[in-house]
Amino acid sequence: MTATAELRVGLCGLGTVGQSLVELLAVNAAAIERQAGRPIRLVQVASRTPKPGVDLQGATFSTDTQQLIGSSEVDVVVELIGGEGLALDLSRATLACGKSLVTGNKALLALHGEELFALARQNKAGIGFEAAVAGGIPLINALVSGLGGNQIGWVAGIINGTCNYILTAMTEDGAAFDAVLATAQELGYAEADPTFDVGGIDAAHKIAIIARLVFGVPINFADVPVAGIEMVSAEDIEYARQLGYRIKHLGVAAGERDAVGNLIAVDVRAHAALVPQDRLLAGVGGVTNAAMVQDNAVGLSVYSGPGAGGRPTAAAVVADLIRVAQGTLPTVPAAIPSEVTGQSVALKALEDTEAAFYMRIPVLDKPGVLAEISHLLSEQGISIESLIQREQAVRDAQVPIVVLTQAVAQSALNRALATIAASPDVVGDIVHLRVESLL
Amino acid sequence: MTATAELRVGLCGLGTVGQSLVELLAVNAAAIERQAGRPIRLVQVASRTPKPGVDLQGATFSTDTQQLIGSSEVDVVVELIGGEGLALDLSRATLACGKSLVTGNKALLALHGEELFALARQNKAGIGFEAAVAGGIPLINALVSGLGGNQIGWVAGIINGTCNYILTAMTEDGAAFDAVLATAQELGYAEADPTFDVGGIDAAHKIAIIARLVFGVPINFADVPVAGIEMVSAEDIEYARQLGYRIKHLGVAAGERDAVGNLIAVDVRAHAALVPQDRLLAGVGGVTNAAMVQDNAVGLSVYSGPGAGGRPTAAAVVADLIRVAQGTLPTVPAAIPSEVTGQSVALKALEDTEAAFYMRIPVLDKPGVLAEISHLLSEQGISIESLIQREQAVRDAQVPIVVLTQAVAQSALNRALATIAASPDVVGDIVHLRVESLL
Repeated sequence: MTATAELRVGLCGLGTVGQSLVELLAVNAAAIERQAGRPIRLVQVASRTPKPGVDLQGATFSTDTQQLIGSSEVDVVVELIGGEGLALDLSRATLACGKSLVTGNKALLALHGEELFALARQNKAGIGFEAAVAGGIPLINALVSGLGGNQIGWVAGIINGTCNYILTAMTEDGAAFDAVLATAQELGYAEADPTFDVGGIDAAHKIAIIARLVFGVPINFADVPVAGIEMVSAEDIEYARQLGYRIKHLGVAAGERDAVGNLIAVDVRAHAALVPQDRLLAGVGGVTNAAMVQDNAVGLSVYSGPGAGGRPTAAAVVADLIRVAQGTLPTVPAAIPSEVTGQSVALKALEDTEAAFYMRIPVLDKPGVLAEISHLLSEQGISIESLIQREQAVRDAQVPIVVLTQAVAQSALNRALATIAASPDVVGDIVHLRVESLL
Repeated sequence: MTATAELRVGLCGLGTVGQSLVELLAVNAAAIERQAGRPIRLVQVASRTPKPGVDLQGATFSTDTQQLIGSSEVDVVVELIGGEGLALDLSRATLACGKSLVTGNKALLALHGEELFALARQNKAGIGFEAAVAGGIPLINALVSGLGGNQIGWVAGIINGTCNYILTAMTEDGAAFDAVLATAQELGYAEADPTFDVGGIDAAHKIAIIARLVFGVPINFADVPVAGIEMVSAEDIEYARQLGYRIKHLGVAAGERDAVGNLIAVDVRAHAALVPQDRLLAGVGGVTNAAMVQDNAVGLSVYSGPGAGGRPTAAAVVADLIRVAQGTLPTVPAAIPSEVTGQSVALKALEDTEAAFYMRIPVLDKPGVLAEISHLLSEQGISIESLIQREQAVRDAQVPIVVLTQAVAQSALNRALATIAASPDVVGDIVHLRVESLL
């Protein structure tokens, strides 16, 4: 056998992204070879269930992923199975035999990244995960290679297309969450069980991976505060609009630094938030993803594009395969202890973070209630920035008081929420959402 | 002398960006070393005029750039002088002695890129030019490394901060071009001689570099159609708004492909254009830059951030220096002939391109004029998409007719413009601007 310069790819998983990858490697073969400096050829595909209708462009098919990983014909393994069980096993096996792994699996990296990155370093293999975060947007590459020499302050992103589709439709049509979710499910923008997306877990996985990457500290996923969009109503979206904001579901990763710039804590979260309507992120609608990055050299930069879908995600896999072919796939360095203490940098508890908040408080429509709410807020040192008290056209026992607070610790807000909820004049659940100024 | 792993940098030019680079290499030394895998140290600085007040962080200073380039202490040369004369000489000299060049000089690469890229390949040196296009936004990296395996359809960008600052201020305040330009000059957002920026030449340089990169064909800069923003009035901005558009100055590079995707022509231009107001680019204000990319895998992606300024541009230089240190700076391949004909791919003449157009035609306020204009347009096969005929509050001899056409060849539009201008009822210069749908 003559020495061949081509990079031979083994693909595990033949769902939407896997099928798009097969297609894209064929369609863009010339551009890919030009960029990579050598051909990238799909040689083997493994999937638990055969997909007889799919043209594998000459690659062999098997249901045996273990065989594929161990094959001397395969130089690099692409994992597009998803989840933890089999995907984790085969990722370990791939790295253990010194082959590089390209994956679109965010759960895998958010939950087992530290182990896999260590395994990769030990075996001098690489892990490409551009496809795991924000689909087709080359965000990981921008963070590592574009902004890699800068001290990153924070990253905030619309990184779940399902949430953004639902919130956009609610904003444009004034429709209720349940109705829009049903439409999204019909259109294939939401899963039959949408919890993973609308509950914020998917966005939390992605922001945890980003935080690990840009701050270089281990992130214990169980400690990441996660909330979804289920509590957001069309009413909240309308009040936010009146106050000059849009409601978006965000993943946020922020570094807290001391006076000389050393990292002392990391704040990682995923939740719905109010975003000022003149920010570029506020204008990102539908299933599109976008991320905003603040660093100490460029300042603010924004990256936007399709966050999911077969072709875009497959394109991210191809970008990583090109880096494997070139030998330029960056290694993720070992998680570093704090430059200050030499100890692990703490993940900030939500209670210790500070923000302005939006609150919608359903109260009895009677004199003195507003004064009472204001008093309960001021008792916790919370100042009111703006307030909307809706006038009822018809006599009604219940009206909402909408409050935008000035910046306050979440712990103080929680205390205020508890005392306000205990008031006999408050007649329903209080909605509260963070304001992210993105400045 | 012991072998040192550090990359030793020589800097030519100590203006705003040069000074920021000196500072940034010091401030972010730890992050840069972590990313590059070895320290990056500034060892020598050369500038035609000494800058006694500047802290060079331990680097030596000289006014002799030739000495710096030849020095055995310098591994890589950063050129931040600008222009063609000295910058071209020292770029040639740097590459000729096998050293990599990092430059922020768009004129240099737009006009002499082919020669310099060839010189780099011959001498196995690299050219980093992230800083030459869109300042701090890692756009070149996104095009090469992020989207490099995709077939790029087009790139359209707000890539001149001065133009965008002026158009944004005119849009927000309804102010006239001259007044805003004067303010921009006071604030340092426009040069004393603003021709280079407001005339579109700077944007044309940048889009020519982008076109060369993504389409791999040589671009003869003299053939690139260039227009600025001087003809745009507050009136046009207001009419555009009524029609659902914003006016932006864009660089556009589009590939024309045959049915199987082979490149057959390249359309490169810089000019003001109407952009639908719901596009992300329409919301990019002030001196911020942004680029939108369409390719056959990701689809549409957007990159935005500061397009100029000391720190952001210096950050782009640092990103290239990191790639030099890692040995991952991509080589720009030789310009390729067309995959179809084996001959050079043609740069499209403006006359041969097609677009919808905005026209503002100052006419005498009398019956029959609108019918006449419509007739002259239809004679050239031009259909009207929308029309605004302003009512005059006071009796006036002159009114504007504003027309938005359907897509038409520029050659047909030019013929229509000539016949319309010749009408005795047309009493002033006709403004016409392209519509870029960005879809």
